[in-house]
Amino acid sequence: MHTFRRILCALVLLSPLAQAEEGMWLLDQLPLQALKDDYQFEPQPAWRERLQNATLRLAGGCSASFVSPSGLLLTNHHCIRQCLAQLSSREQNLFETGFQATRAEDERICPEVEIHQLIESSDISPVIAQVVKDLAPAQAAAAREAALAELQTSCAAGAPKLRCEVVSLYGGSRYALYRYRRHQDVRLAFAPEAAIAHFGGDPDNFSFPRYALDMSLLRIYEDGRPLSTPQYFPIKAAGARRDELVFVTGHPGATQRDLTVTQLTALRDLILPQRISYLAELRGVLRQFAQQGPEQQRISRREYLAIENALKSFRGRHTALSEPGFMEARVEAEKVLRKKAAKHKLLGPDSAKAWDEINQAQQIWRDIYAEYSMLELMRGYQSDLLAIARHLVRAAQERPKPDAERLQEYADTALPQLTQHLFSAAPIPLQLEELTLGWSLEKLREQLRPDHPAVQISLGAQNPMQVARDLVRGTRLHELDQRKALWDGGIDAINASSDPMIRFARLIDGAARAIRQRHEQEVEAVIARNSRLISQARYQVEGDSRYPEASFTLRLSYGQVRGWQDKGRQIDPFTSIAGILARATGQPPFALPASWSALGDGEELQYAMNFVSSNDIIGGNSGSPVLNREGELVGLVFDGNMHSLGGAYAYDGRYNRAIAVHPQAIRLALQSIYHANRLAEELFPRP
Amino acid sequence: MHTFRRILCALVLLSPLAQAEEGMWLLDQLPLQALKDDYQFEPQPAWRERLQNATLRLAGGCSASFVSPSGLLLTNHHCIRQCLAQLSSREQNLFETGFQATRAEDERICPEVEIHQLIESSDISPVIAQVVKDLAPAQAAAAREAALAELQTSCAAGAPKLRCEVVSLYGGSRYALYRYRRHQDVRLAFAPEAAIAHFGGDPDNFSFPRYALDMSLLRIYEDGRPLSTPQYFPIKAAGARRDELVFVTGHPGATQRDLTVTQLTALRDLILPQRISYLAELRGVLRQFAQQGPEQQRISRREYLAIENALKSFRGRHTALSEPGFMEARVEAEKVLRKKAAKHKLLGPDSAKAWDEINQAQQIWRDIYAEYSMLELMRGYQSDLLAIARHLVRAAQERPKPDAERLQEYADTALPQLTQHLFSAAPIPLQLEELTLGWSLEKLREQLRPDHPAVQISLGAQNPMQVARDLVRGTRLHELDQRKALWDGGIDAINASSDPMIRFARLIDGAARAIRQRHEQEVEAVIARNSRLISQARYQVEGDSRYPEASFTLRLSYGQVRGWQDKGRQIDPFTSIAGILARATGQPPFALPASWSALGDGEELQYAMNFVSSNDIIGGNSGSPVLNREGELVGLVFDGNMHSLGGAYAYDGRYNRAIAVHPQAIRLALQSIYHANRLAEELFPRP
Repeated sequence: MHTFRRILCALVLLSPLAQAEEGMWLLDQLPLQALKDDYQFEPQPAWRERLQNATLRLAGGCSASFVSPSGLLLTNHHCIRQCLAQLSSREQNLFETGFQATRAEDERICPEVEIHQLIESSDISPVIAQVVKDLAPAQAAAAREAALAELQTSCAAGAPKLRCEVVSLYGGSRYALYRYRRHQDVRLAFAPEAAIAHFGGDPDNFSFPRYALDMSLLRIYEDGRPLSTPQYFPIKAAGARRDELVFVTGHPGATQRDLTVTQLTALRDLILPQRISYLAELRGVLRQFAQQGPEQQRISRREYLAIENALKSFRGRHTALSEPGFMEARVEAEKVLRKKAAKHKLLGPDSAKAWDEINQAQQIWRDIYAEYSMLELMRGYQSDLLAIARHLVRAAQERPKPDAERLQEYADTALPQLTQHLFSAAPIPLQLEELTLGWSLEKLREQLRPDHPAVQISLGAQNPMQVARDLVRGTRLHELDQRKALWDGGIDAINASSDPMIRFARLIDGAARAIRQRHEQEVEAVIARNSRLISQARYQVEGDSRYPEASFTLRLSYGQVRGWQDKGRQIDPFTSIAGILARATGQPPFALPASWSALGDGEELQYAMNFVSSNDIIGGNSGSPVLNREGELVGLVFDGNMHSLGGAYAYDGRYNRAIAVHPQAIRLALQSIYHANRLAEELFPRP
Repeated sequence: MHTFRRILCALVLLSPLAQAEEGMWLLDQLPLQALKDDYQFEPQPAWRERLQNATLRLAGGCSASFVSPSGLLLTNHHCIRQCLAQLSSREQNLFETGFQATRAEDERICPEVEIHQLIESSDISPVIAQVVKDLAPAQAAAAREAALAELQTSCAAGAPKLRCEVVSLYGGSRYALYRYRRHQDVRLAFAPEAAIAHFGGDPDNFSFPRYALDMSLLRIYEDGRPLSTPQYFPIKAAGARRDELVFVTGHPGATQRDLTVTQLTALRDLILPQRISYLAELRGVLRQFAQQGPEQQRISRREYLAIENALKSFRGRHTALSEPGFMEARVEAEKVLRKKAAKHKLLGPDSAKAWDEINQAQQIWRDIYAEYSMLELMRGYQSDLLAIARHLVRAAQERPKPDAERLQEYADTALPQLTQHLFSAAPIPLQLEELTLGWSLEKLREQLRPDHPAVQISLGAQNPMQVARDLVRGTRLHELDQRKALWDGGIDAINASSDPMIRFARLIDGAARAIRQRHEQEVEAVIARNSRLISQARYQVEGDSRYPEASFTLRLSYGQVRGWQDKGRQIDPFTSIAGILARATGQPPFALPASWSALGDGEELQYAMNFVSSNDIIGGNSGSPVLNREGELVGLVFDGNMHSLGGAYAYDGRYNRAIAVHPQAIRLALQSIYHANRLAEELFPRP
């Protein structure tokens, strides 16, 4: 009885009819009827156009938006951690001090930040349909891939400032070509201290009530001058009212709401538990490493924070998948779809085949997961230097090949980002390299067992720490000119290199490539092919009344400024400046930076600090603007609550909330706390 | 199709009809017919009696056996790690050097080792049945508990060298009273270096082929002289042949083969993943701590090894529960039992109620698990000193109460072991205390959130590391006389104490007791009551043709010396001395100690090192003797293979193997490597 009722509840939840507010919508495919019916809102073309032009993507996996006509953009502090680390030194730690460019010329180049601005997206489904018409499945797949690669390459040919991406929507039921402007001269204008950006630290992460100023300001330059950006989001300092309709634009990374039951089961039972325990142990190692001294703390901080964040996120997902009733509901939903597919012959005569083949591929995936993740995903080789070495080795092997035959990360369109990474001047902390490489080689041996050929090749008669020490201390790949010489010298330079890291990368690459190939052929391709079939069946049933899975492309979500009920307790949607003062204990992660002691006891104590809304977001939405009907910025998304983590697999409007910085806090910080007058005036111009 | 076949296979596997070789049998309830039919073996009373008298239990959770008439007992090296750590010092690290008592008077007292020797077990089911006759369920439970407590107490009254335990069998369908002789003067006679005892370390743990001399020799003393033990197992140096019938006696700790589906699901989805990620992180912390220097390595080694072992074990269990088909088969098996129970009215009119109530209790268990584990199980307070403080505080509160009303660990029968622990002279490394307490307080805050009252009480405005530092540096509980004074002073001394650890223990105990009470009433009691009902139903169907769940009581398993098929590869049941020489790389954990360089290239290279058999074992069987039909010792169990870890939930005779040290290796080590002539002659007397 109880079980049945619980399943019923969950079924309602997960039914293919999207819940109100669920959805990460394409801008050219908004749920207009729902917006009109529920909110009497009818978006105009100019409104959409501004949203497209002023919403940005950080190549590293965040969102951002223009907030002034002079190329100034707002994103999260946690989205530019890499830049802050790279601009920090023993002498000046920007995480501790924060940063403010008092004068325009003080803005500092972020070595590896790349910003993408969507110029246009076009539907190329008809072209692809034409290409594969009348072909048998095997030929169709190859022809499709070739056509997509060709479209992507020719789209940006000869235009290094453009980036084109083929995007598969509805599991390959539709294809689109996205053309972006690529900005690589990006400079840091403002970042507060990590203590306030990340106030509450890991304990408060993915939680609310919350009090964090997780913001930063960057500026895009072109030809040495600030980019002119007439389309931007003016900030409305007052923010949005309780229950007000708000929009979030941005680039949600990936959802997996259409996975089959066996795929979800493998995530719950194998993939997520493995990830979690791997990261938990690495977290412990780095925590203790950081205790050894301030320098160790500095060089490991960024990785440590990333791990904490990933851990909590994976745990949230695992919890969602393990919730009683969740999987049962998915089993039922899958039955329903399979029945419809069989009844209407949506998948040809053998309707069960698509699911059966995915199930078989999942079994193989389980069998090879340890090898694949350790060798190809380099979880057994955690080292930036070794990753660089592998890139150099593989690039030398791949670049001479025709573009379409290369491993995808060495395709022409991918090279600018790769070289930016390879030739970054950012220092690589060798002590940390040695630590993580040594530790991960232990995991390699643990996961694959000492007798595995790849383990034998990697370790020989040495122990993991020795191997790591010899490699890190022997290599010169931390020197930029070494990397450049090996890149330019191609395969001959690689073969002739006596650099131990290069030699090691060559030594271990056979096993990695072999398992990658097996994964691509027996898992990835099988799942892609059959997921496409299932998605097509679903698309035939639902059409585009449903949004496609998130794909790191521009989306819009709508929702309301609204709290939620947590075990009978009503959570208010706003927190205040007074609240953060009450929560500050003086001890990290609840210690306010000294700058905040300037706060008086005036009316600013009543200003809002953070707030939540029911927008459907996911990783990648960090840095997204929260907008009102007028296209004004009324918030800066930086997190979701615990329930939002399950959003990878399903959205639940009762609990799922996005968390944002309130513009009152942004204004207060710039004006009264950091006295960043130049930027404050740019963002909040006096009328 | 595939799925269905897989389920069918699993069903056969898990059917209530035990597989050949499955089973941890009571000595008075052996599967005589199967032994006779399959092996033409009919055990005689004297054989059984010797098994009972010569098989021992280490209170810490291991097995052992007498191997000479002078109180000498054989167990694993890993079973006496605590003793080795306590007898080690900065100057002499017994893990590195090993230990050998050249003369009888060199044998050294192990401060906290307690050995139990079973004197008799008696069936008290009829007594209990009489007590609860005609009582309503609620009264019955209370009356039963009272009667059991009374039986247990009176059994050992006035005899401090006795220990009595009431044992519930078949989920409470039967009760037995076990009476043990308690030995507390236990001395170390021999232990090899950890490098050989634990050869292969964590990478080889729970694996085979294997090469480890995981043995140690202790001796029981009485009144200052070696105990006379006429009943012992003589060692047969030649060991057992391939396919030979062998027995394992010992004290398997706990199996959970009768859990319901929701219980197994909670283990798979919540309990095991939480345990694994907690331990993984702690492992990372300790790994890095040990890198700080040899002293840090020494003081953390024991805990580190225990964590590695637990981690691998929990992972093996999680893998077994996550195996495709496993849970589906359990769902089917549960359906069958429920159907039988309903049909034959084995559970009264509302047959579903027992399962429904367990399901509800499981939901509560999920809800309170974080609080229960953090507060009551002290996972948020990892510190030996704090555990001691809590014992002192609670004992002062509990000891004045009538025995039956106390928390069970303060019942009269439990006090000798508790005080042995509390008043152990073993040093408590303060640096490690500070580390683990600080780290675990972070986990407390992470799991329960910063706003939880228990977190607020524990941390106040301080951070976890500060709290830990102040407590550990301020307390004097590491001084034995302080502990004794507080124990003897009772509640007045506790209340008057200004020791910060005592004050802290008092401060946090309210929350811990509250969640313990909730767990006992809403989870434990409900599950116990309904599991008993279900077990009774199962017992009515199966009788004692099936063995009861393991319960840290004396059991016998039978099996054969036999390898297995691993992914198409045949694993031979024996490894050799030559094999370990080939595997030794010179690097830990594959480095042989210097003593082993004495090995020549004579015929001893062909001696067996380790071997596997199909005996059904589980944690607690470590240190168990492997015996032949003649009652000779032909092996020393020290591990199981990976598949054996799933044995917690089901035995699979195709894959499940026990791993043992071969007597040839034991003899070779004592005679030729360590020249432990006195002990070698005692164990292998010249004819």
